[in-house]
Amino acid sequence: MPDTMRAAVFKDVRDIHIEEVPIPRCGPTDAIVKVTTTTICGTDSHIWRGEYPVAPGRVVGHEPAGVIHEVGEAVTGYEIGERVVVGAITPCGACYFCQAGDLSQCAGYEDQWGIIGGWRLGNSMDGVQAEYFRVPYAQANLARIPEGLSDEEVLFVTDIATTGIAAVETADVQLGDSVVVFAQGPIGLCATAGARLRGAGLVIAVDSNAKRLEMAKAMGADVVIDYTQEDPVAKVKALTSGRGADVAIEALGIQETFENCLKSVRPAGMVSSLGVYGDKVTIPLEPFIYGIGDIDIRTTLCPGGKKRLGSLMDLVKIGRLDLKQLITHRFSLDEIEEAYPLFSNQEDGVVKVTITP
Amino acid sequence: MPDTMRAAVFKDVRDIHIEEVPIPRCGPTDAIVKVTTTTICGTDSHIWRGEYPVAPGRVVGHEPAGVIHEVGEAVTGYEIGERVVVGAITPCGACYFCQAGDLSQCAGYEDQWGIIGGWRLGNSMDGVQAEYFRVPYAQANLARIPEGLSDEEVLFVTDIATTGIAAVETADVQLGDSVVVFAQGPIGLCATAGARLRGAGLVIAVDSNAKRLEMAKAMGADVVIDYTQEDPVAKVKALTSGRGADVAIEALGIQETFENCLKSVRPAGMVSSLGVYGDKVTIPLEPFIYGIGDIDIRTTLCPGGKKRLGSLMDLVKIGRLDLKQLITHRFSLDEIEEAYPLFSNQEDGVVKVTITP
Amino acid sequence: MPDTMRAAVFKDVRDIHIEEVPIPRCGPTDAIVKVTTTTICGTDSHIWRGEYPVAPGRVVGHEPAGVIHEVGEAVTGYEIGERVVVGAITPCGACYFCQAGDLSQCAGYEDQWGIIGGWRLGNSMDGVQAEYFRVPYAQANLARIPEGLSDEEVLFVTDIATTGIAAVETADVQLGDSVVVFAQGPIGLCATAGARLRGAGLVIAVDSNAKRLEMAKAMGADVVIDYTQEDPVAKVKALTSGRGADVAIEALGIQETFENCLKSVRPAGMVSSLGVYGDKVTIPLEPFIYGIGDIDIRTTLCPGGKKRLGSLMDLVKIGRLDLKQLITHRFSLDEIEEAYPLFSNQEDGVVKVTITP
Amino acid sequence: MPDTMRAAVFKDVRDIHIEEVPIPRCGPTDAIVKVTTTTICGTDSHIWRGEYPVAPGRVVGHEPAGVIHEVGEAVTGYEIGERVVVGAITPCGACYFCQAGDLSQCAGYEDQWGIIGGWRLGNSMDGVQAEYFRVPYAQANLARIPEGLSDEEVLFVTDIATTGIAAVETADVQLGDSVVVFAQGPIGLCATAGARLRGAGLVIAVDSNAKRLEMAKAMGADVVIDYTQEDPVAKVKALTSGRGADVAIEALGIQETFENCLKSVRPAGMVSSLGVYGDKVTIPLEPFIYGIGDIDIRTTLCPGGKKRLGSLMDLVKIGRLDLKQLITHRFSLDEIEEAYPLFSNQEDGVVKVTITP
Repeated sequence: MPDTMRAAVFKDVRDIHIEEVPIPRCGPTDAIVKVTTTTICGTDSHIWRGEYPVAPGRVVGHEPAGVIHEVGEAVTGYEIGERVVVGAITPCGACYFCQAGDLSQCAGYEDQWGIIGGWRLGNSMDGVQAEYFRVPYAQANLARIPEGLSDEEVLFVTDIATTGIAAVETADVQLGDSVVVFAQGPIGLCATAGARLRGAGLVIAVDSNAKRLEMAKAMGADVVIDYTQEDPVAKVKALTSGRGADVAIEALGIQETFENCLKSVRPAGMVSSLGVYGDKVTIPLEPFIYGIGDIDIRTTLCPGGKKRLGSLMDLVKIGRLDLKQLITHRFSLDEIEEAYPLFSNQEDGVVKVTITP
Repeated sequence: MPDTMRAAVFKDVRDIHIEEVPIPRCGPTDAIVKVTTTTICGTDSHIWRGEYPVAPGRVVGHEPAGVIHEVGEAVTGYEIGERVVVGAITPCGACYFCQAGDLSQCAGYEDQWGIIGGWRLGNSMDGVQAEYFRVPYAQANLARIPEGLSDEEVLFVTDIATTGIAAVETADVQLGDSVVVFAQGPIGLCATAGARLRGAGLVIAVDSNAKRLEMAKAMGADVVIDYTQEDPVAKVKALTSGRGADVAIEALGIQETFENCLKSVRPAGMVSSLGVYGDKVTIPLEPFIYGIGDIDIRTTLCPGGKKRLGSLMDLVKIGRLDLKQLITHRFSLDEIEEAYPLFSNQEDGVVKVTITP
Repeated sequence: MPDTMRAAVFKDVRDIHIEEVPIPRCGPTDAIVKVTTTTICGTDSHIWRGEYPVAPGRVVGHEPAGVIHEVGEAVTGYEIGERVVVGAITPCGACYFCQAGDLSQCAGYEDQWGIIGGWRLGNSMDGVQAEYFRVPYAQANLARIPEGLSDEEVLFVTDIATTGIAAVETADVQLGDSVVVFAQGPIGLCATAGARLRGAGLVIAVDSNAKRLEMAKAMGADVVIDYTQEDPVAKVKALTSGRGADVAIEALGIQETFENCLKSVRPAGMVSSLGVYGDKVTIPLEPFIYGIGDIDIRTTLCPGGKKRLGSLMDLVKIGRLDLKQLITHRFSLDEIEEAYPLFSNQEDGVVKVTITP
Repeated sequence: MPDTMRAAVFKDVRDIHIEEVPIPRCGPTDAIVKVTTTTICGTDSHIWRGEYPVAPGRVVGHEPAGVIHEVGEAVTGYEIGERVVVGAITPCGACYFCQAGDLSQCAGYEDQWGIIGGWRLGNSMDGVQAEYFRVPYAQANLARIPEGLSDEEVLFVTDIATTGIAAVETADVQLGDSVVVFAQGPIGLCATAGARLRGAGLVIAVDSNAKRLEMAKAMGADVVIDYTQEDPVAKVKALTSGRGADVAIEALGIQETFENCLKSVRPAGMVSSLGVYGDKVTIPLEPFIYGIGDIDIRTTLCPGGKKRLGSLMDLVKIGRLDLKQLITHRFSLDEIEEAYPLFSNQEDGVVKVTITP
């Protein structure tokens, strides 16, 4: 085995390029996975644009499918060569947060929490847009790919599907609830699929991009709203007997969609926010004045762990969840410098790309 | 029986005074209650100051203890002369919201919802700072006072105790959780008592008023913080291994306390807001950026209904909840014009007043 | 309007026949509904066989679709002629149980609870296998049929669909959970549909009747097990990595299916029971010894109320729930004496019948 | 350091005695703890009587307080000499069950689940009635003792307090609920304390032992019932307006108490069972017939993990939970052969004993 590998390294703003770097070493609770397919996430675009800080020299990327290459001595039950996915968040299972059920906020064995949470890959440690990567807390995070499923069919359970669907679960959607999802980017599309999966009675998708609204229908939306053509808040109310939706999901992270969520939900409704906010947001007066709204605002970071990834892959296998349809472009790892601007600038009708080492 | 009665009527900003008005008539699903004790609420102060609009001529007040005077023909199981309390919120039990469990957002038989919610007394219909008042949806809202309890012992279950304690329940406080309550006004004091009742592991109360901090201790706080003497956020973190509180309760309704709540909770923590906001509030960036906080923000309006009021009166009876200690001043109904400025301006160390017709 | 009507009256064991009886009178909180379509329930078969006692002379039946004929003076917002369904359970919305969220255990304005619960129609008061019936607590129980839906499309939300789906909600099925439903009678088939609706990852249906197993597939089962051909417990384990299902639903009410549920679930799994038990059941030792199973056993009675019925009709309207396919036979009210033995003895491949006055 | 130590070894029925055995070796994810105080559990009595099988030669005991003696190379953040408790259940944090939140059913890295669950110490591996023991999955299970607390103050959080209180949480006791606890052995007493801690409105304790009923009052019961003097079911109903308790907790594990729980709860009530059953139990007909009861039966095994133990120790530290009062007898490890029959046969008014190596 060689000592070095090719990897996408963050150097500077708008400068992520392929370098030859050392293959990571395997500690006792780690595994090393050989990447077979990965992708670029919206969060990687934030890094690329300099909006989210990572250390120069960091290998980026956090959504891998691959093959187990090596397992640490304290890891049990896995074989070299097994096909796995690993989530963007890598819970240790042992800390205060993991034992509280807040896996996404994992503090790790080192007991460090906060802005980083359990998101380590391509953030606080080297990531997966590379030939190999190190899996921390491998026992809790190596999720076997069910037989018969391709990398492309399961790849998005590592982050966007888990997050989008978790936002639906966080919102505690009940059978027959009306759910509106603001913004149909990759993660919003997954929330739309999640709302349908969970038994929402009416799934409403909002965006301005005709292609994405079309895809929203394929993912499970009953009604789509082009907000450039009609007022989405008024339309949601019209569709829900004037009351407003039981649940609104925010999937972009700007004031406008956040505020539209608050205005679109019924009294005592639920706003579930998974967008990545680049600025403060303001709660308009009405929902809060005299506390009269009884509104919940819940934020969701991608929960991780092999069980959750496994459950979603079960849904893919049984035919309930088609994530592969989100893929619009395919690149090799060497082409990643070309893929970053295309994906980040939403060129050429891109929804999701794959990256193959 | 006379046809008219004395009642506190909202006339104009800072002008609530006693007038002779007709005694309300009893419809088939109503009851008429003769008031024996009532109080002034912070919301009444908002009305008095002109910050919350009610129609001129409206009888105000929404926290009554009294005696059943008349029951409508469709109401069953109640006798004239029984002692009861009625909540500020009067759920009908039959509408979409009531059947969804959101009693505080009751739309009533008329199916009207929104800013008013289920708060009718002293708001959308005449209230209880009077000799008599009409109870809408009486079957669901006449809560018998357990034998042996005085009006003063149970009066505050009609609103502030129900709301303050509901905020603790909304926050789903777990045994051993650390809970910080920002602002120790009457409702914040009830939230402090609720956190203790529910089994919080550490109850922290924040205010600047020495007397209220003293009362917070009597209501159940383990630690009190005078925010003029030390930074409450830093202190909360110091008391919670650096992580932050599991739950923060906002009981004032201004940007500063709202923001302190968000800064005081641990990752994946819970902010439960029951304050009455007079202006928009802004969510600072950190808890939302990259959705990384997994923070929940939940707002609570006073839930109503005779069952909940009954449960709280059970807790008073068994000796777990001492609400009477909040009473600092007592007035007759005729003195209410004097009581309003005293209570609203927090003069003379007032916490809660009683009003006796 | 005439004073009398035809109605199916319980006279004696295996003797339910059509008689001319008075049309019920409308009290202030009631409505009178003219029945357009109804059905026979498994519970009616218990009555017919003498296994569940009702008073001789009682009009039976509790699953009506019809048209509002009269509304009481205390009922608001409904018009004569509107098409409605009314649930088997008629919560009052005002009692201890309704305010606790336990609508199915409604004690009513009379505050009577226990074995009867909120099930009044065709049980403690006259039922709906008649030309007209009285709706108690009409404000809470008149559920408008959405425009465009036929009686047959919505009829079963009045009981079996509400119950079967409620059992799934009681079990708190999570996305991707494996769910096994023991017995595919009408209510079991609805539970199967509910499991699929709610996002179960694998829905397993067990029965011995080939036609019902076929219908189970149409209602949403991924796998069906004929328990006369293979051991259902072993098969469930084989389908779930050896662990057992996350949730087992009991839909028959006998020791064998109850025990199979307990044996089929994984450690810390959930047994949700909606079957009608005619005899005591015994919990085998293993799940209970040393408390080691962490098993939950939850029983569900049909929850009622117009909101829930409305939510299910929304799911029918949007095309997620096809209940009409359960209908195998259609009778007029005058033919009901023929329909009872056919349905109760499961003759001629019957699943559900309709009865049309 | 020596190679051997004294330990209580199960040899045969009613034969547990002190032997010299090897000190356990520390694997990479383990720790070795030097025991300072331990105790005998009811489950140990089952082993002693031969009612629960463990392999001859097994060191027994699963409730330790001690000092860290050695930590594995994969364990981070702990120092030799720190004072800790370790729970009876030792969740790995990485398996399907741990990630599902069912820590007590932990399958471990070896992915073995079932009758053993996460209970390893003194069961499937050597236990803690010894000078030293090995802690599996040490990162998740070493719970530091807060400064200022003695071993005796915190010892019972390792099992009985965690279990008894967990049964209250499993039952989802709400503020003001009435709770009856059947049997006031050590674990029932902890459930009584838990009900009080959690804000129950009325805590009723049932037993026949006057001393234990006295202790129940000290632990938080409002009312005690000696079932040899009055019918506990009738008394519970009389105390709860005839409805029955909101929650009944079974803490013995026999048909009589199980059935009394089912008979004592209100419709839609909750039975939380933590007793250790030695035989099958039968559900009487009424709560199940026609599913009419809406009863939940939930069983609880001791949940583990350092967070939960830490939360309970916080409650001890803040003065809300006094567990030390349960100690009636103190023995050295060498006297354990004398302690077993005394504790198992409930001689000399014993409630709990301590064992000091």
